[in-house]
Amino acid sequence: MGSEPTNGIDPEVVRARVEDALATSEPVFGRFFLARLLDLTVTYDDEQQRTCVELPFADFLRNPQGSLHGGVIATVMDISMGHLCHRYLSTAVTIEMQMRFFRPVNGPSRCEGRLLRPGRRIVHLESHLYDEQGRLCASATASWHRLDTDSQSQTPQTVAEPGNT
Amino acid sequence: MGSEPTNGIDPEVVRARVEDALATSEPVFGRFFLARLLDLTVTYDDEQQRTCVELPFADFLRNPQGSLHGGVIATVMDISMGHLCHRYLSTAVTIEMQMRFFRPVNGPSRCEGRLLRPGRRIVHLESHLYDEQGRLCASATASWHRLDTDSQSQTPQTVAEPGNT
Amino acid sequence: MGSEPTNGIDPEVVRARVEDALATSEPVFGRFFLARLLDLTVTYDDEQQRTCVELPFADFLRNPQGSLHGGVIATVMDISMGHLCHRYLSTAVTIEMQMRFFRPVNGPSRCEGRLLRPGRRIVHLESHLYDEQGRLCASATASWHRLDTDSQSQTPQTVAEPGNT
Amino acid sequence: MGSEPTNGIDPEVVRARVEDALATSEPVFGRFFLARLLDLTVTYDDEQQRTCVELPFADFLRNPQGSLHGGVIATVMDISMGHLCHRYLSTAVTIEMQMRFFRPVNGPSRCEGRLLRPGRRIVHLESHLYDEQGRLCASATASWHRLDTDSQSQTPQTVAEPGNT
Repeated sequence: MGSEPTNGIDPEVVRARVEDALATSEPVFGRFFLARLLDLTVTYDDEQQRTCVELPFADFLRNPQGSLHGGVIATVMDISMGHLCHRYLSTAVTIEMQMRFFRPVNGPSRCEGRLLRPGRRIVHLESHLYDEQGRLCASATASWHRLDTDSQSQTPQTVAEPGNT
Repeated sequence: MGSEPTNGIDPEVVRARVEDALATSEPVFGRFFLARLLDLTVTYDDEQQRTCVELPFADFLRNPQGSLHGGVIATVMDISMGHLCHRYLSTAVTIEMQMRFFRPVNGPSRCEGRLLRPGRRIVHLESHLYDEQGRLCASATASWHRLDTDSQSQTPQTVAEPGNT
Repeated sequence: MGSEPTNGIDPEVVRARVEDALATSEPVFGRFFLARLLDLTVTYDDEQQRTCVELPFADFLRNPQGSLHGGVIATVMDISMGHLCHRYLSTAVTIEMQMRFFRPVNGPSRCEGRLLRPGRRIVHLESHLYDEQGRLCASATASWHRLDTDSQSQTPQTVAEPGNT
Repeated sequence: MGSEPTNGIDPEVVRARVEDALATSEPVFGRFFLARLLDLTVTYDDEQQRTCVELPFADFLRNPQGSLHGGVIATVMDISMGHLCHRYLSTAVTIEMQMRFFRPVNGPSRCEGRLLRPGRRIVHLESHLYDEQGRLCASATASWHRLDTDSQSQTPQTVAEPGNT
């Protein structure tokens, strides 16, 4: 197994990223394997109740056309909203999410999440993804169902199953 | 660096998956790195003009609550629709995608994409994700912008930049 | 006040429609004023758990370009899904709705609603609008929040306030 | 046919509204029949490139539960975005629109539209609806397809058919 580049992807870079993710991941918010594989940095602005998720660029995240894959963008946006919900309201599961794509992303990006409507049961959020030049490249809105307010009828197993609402 | 399990994730399984993806990926539809890392199998029903994308389950794809991460589901659905567009119409870029989550996924799944409205410029598609028991776990609808019908004003560079419409 | 046509709209047709709606409307499902003004006919297929809402065409429903206004389409689709929820599950309020427009509508249309995922708390539905030739002209998907399963914490007033979740 | 109230709706108020709409409507932006029936006032902030659409409350716009019908909200939001597109970019047709409902509306409201991404072919917009107390009651995002940039291949008839893309 050599370390020669494969279609622009340097195998050693991928292997180092994977080993780091294996060594540092835990099944908790902010540190689960996919978040570590993407090398995300999640920070919070507690006064404004916002999250910022930073995503470094990596060749292995490209789509067939060469820019950051839309599924990776969806993953990062989902994380920016889920972490926000978890920190300021309660654990919740995604009901639906809509994503809009404005520009291809070809470098580091950051994703800013904020609450649109923090309802007692249903929470609406939005997230914006910017590139290094500060240009808006994608946006997302989503609704989540809070698990705390229906606690009487939730079993622990159900609580652990996102989406099962 | 040992191969002992980390939070339910077997490092050897992850490493084998990564090496296979490095060895078999190419920057083309169906074989780019992320599609290979997820070990996707894409098949087509040319008569019905449908795609089927099969996704094996893997521990490293779990969210903090333990089931398949919504971002992975988004990635697979996006691929099911992009491949469909590419095979039956033309290369196209995602304008927007909305995803709905019905049930958590905890095993292998398959995603079936079909055309809703194959317009000359704008294409609407939908995709449904089922678990091994055949239960509907998630659905997505999306619109894509075809790049072929505006060819006069598209430069090759623009064609290569998804979302830049 | 004459009955001469105003930009293609026959005032007498509008007045007759309004008088009929005033005479036949009640603040209940299927018979509230807007549903009567649009002259909707709502029918159900109880075996398949589907609704069909028929909308006659009228000149006063045109947009500035001359076809059926998207807001009217949204109204009819919302009704097709709300009535479905109400008949087969419980009263519920719309969390969100996404609509897709495929073709302009210039004549009578019908809207068919069905359940995508009848959850205990969150219900996902979809609706398709067809023209007289049976062509798919628009589609919608939506999620609704059921009010029955949270009955302990709902006051009658809250139940009467759609969207307040 | 008397003018006695029908389920909270004063027939004379409805008739006066209808006569005013018949007398003042024209098949143009801002003055077509539905916009006049809803008694909308559309204003623009040219510096910020925003629209504001004001909607007076009327009993005949209620849903079966008693608040402003979601289809009316959709109509007003669609108008706020279509007018924005028309004034600052070009005529365009709606590809899709997603609406989120946060609070029931029981009085006058105003809807503020702004451009999210004014692309050369695809335009993304958003709109927020506020009640008299300034509370956010609903939001919408949408994508529209501009008709000017594809002018070579558009026939006048196609231009007149929204959604036919």
